Amino acid sequence: MTIRLYLDHPLSAGQPITLDRAQAHYLFNVMRMGQGAQIAVFNGSDGEWAAEISDAGKRGGAVTCLSQTRPQLNPPDLWLLFAPIKKARTDFIVEKATELGAARISPVTTDYTNSERVRVDRLAAHAIEAAEQCGGTYVPTVAEPQKLSQLLRDWDPARRILFCDETQTDAHTVFASLPKGPWAILIGPEGGFSDAERRNLVSLDFVHRASLGPRILRADTAAVAALTLWQATQGDWVGAPAP
Amino acid sequence: MTIRLYLDHPLSAGQPITLDRAQAHYLFNVMRMGQGAQIAVFNGSDGEWAAEISDAGKRGGAVTCLSQTRPQLNPPDLWLLFAPIKKARTDFIVEKATELGAARISPVTTDYTNSERVRVDRLAAHAIEAAEQCGGTYVPTVAEPQKLSQLLRDWDPARRILFCDETQTDAHTVFASLPKGPWAILIGPEGGFSDAERRNLVSLDFVHRASLGPRILRADTAAVAALTLWQATQGDWVGAPAP
Repeated sequence: MTIRLYLDHPLSAGQPITLDRAQAHYLFNVMRMGQGAQIAVFNGSDGEWAAEISDAGKRGGAVTCLSQTRPQLNPPDLWLLFAPIKKARTDFIVEKATELGAARISPVTTDYTNSERVRVDRLAAHAIEAAEQCGGTYVPTVAEPQKLSQLLRDWDPARRILFCDETQTDAHTVFASLPKGPWAILIGPEGGFSDAERRNLVSLDFVHRASLGPRILRADTAAVAALTLWQATQGDWVGAPAP
Repeated sequence: MTIRLYLDHPLSAGQPITLDRAQAHYLFNVMRMGQGAQIAVFNGSDGEWAAEISDAGKRGGAVTCLSQTRPQLNPPDLWLLFAPIKKARTDFIVEKATELGAARISPVTTDYTNSERVRVDRLAAHAIEAAEQCGGTYVPTVAEPQKLSQLLRDWDPARRILFCDETQTDAHTVFASLPKGPWAILIGPEGGFSDAERRNLVSLDFVHRASLGPRILRADTAAVAALTLWQATQGDWVGAPAP
């Protein structure tokens, strides 16, 4: 398995890129790599490159890009909106949304959200790690948390919202017949939406509904299931090339 | 939210059922419930029942079933075969497979499986907890770990295996056109299958293949994605009643 590293830097052949302390520690101390060793790098916009460790010092180092090995592959225009839950499950949702090709991950607070502090920098770091792991060349944006009511007031209606609602039936028919265009999947908190939130959602023209089967799914399971069904019926799993 | 408890005991109206120590501790100490309080119980075969705490003592207690509140709902005949991975992710797979309605969960060891010990009793406890949580009335069986080669030698070919293979394309077409009947979904280890295992799988008539999109999914993500697509196209999400 090639080591893949996300670098927040433009990538082009021959230009040395300084590693930050954590990256240098990982490559030189954890993975015991030295000068001349090869890794793969990506920055979210320039595809994947083969790169060589061109400097491996005590306190830092650099890599130099050799050639592009994979073109940039952006995910389809799909956002995930979710109500943050316990820390481990929130981390998990960010990891899975990255693997499953969400373009943007947006924590939303709802009437029944436990108002735990969401650390966006931590979630963004999880997204980077998941992108390194899954072979993607894109890292989703993690947005600042927003109140659901505010988010819906400011919403651009050109992006439809798919609201996973336990009172609806037949996920497959719904997902397979969604209109084309930008979408956001909205996953509620463990306690569900409040009656006021549900009334508001149902009243909005850009909000569609689907259910996810006869059992009650945890929020993290629902997020993975809904992203999967969207990608498989509308997204980049349709006729997709193998990884 | 009603508390739901799995009881390993036949359920019928009026018959007191002794609680084990962990259940009594949970109801009386953690949830601070007392005599006369109501919970929901299920045993995996008699549906869901409303039950009353009929005895709440210092060291134990009992509940008595009042009436059946939900009929028994068994999942479709779908098994999950997976190569155990790190503990937290293995626990997660069992939890998700239960929520997503797998009938049986079977750990398999492969050429590239890290041979960590699988504790079936622990995994079975996770399945019970997930069933209590998701409102299901069924608890999947967790089988003893088996070597993949042996499992395939002894396999009843009437049950087809869907092998999630990164070299194939278009998940949706494959899942939507699977022949009806009993199925097992097979998820490989993080390192993939060995060449010998892959050759063996591909040579078997009862093995079908599907891919899960253009990114490399972790084993736990792949398990959730494949179970979702199967349930949505072949299983009990098709025209399903809401939970």
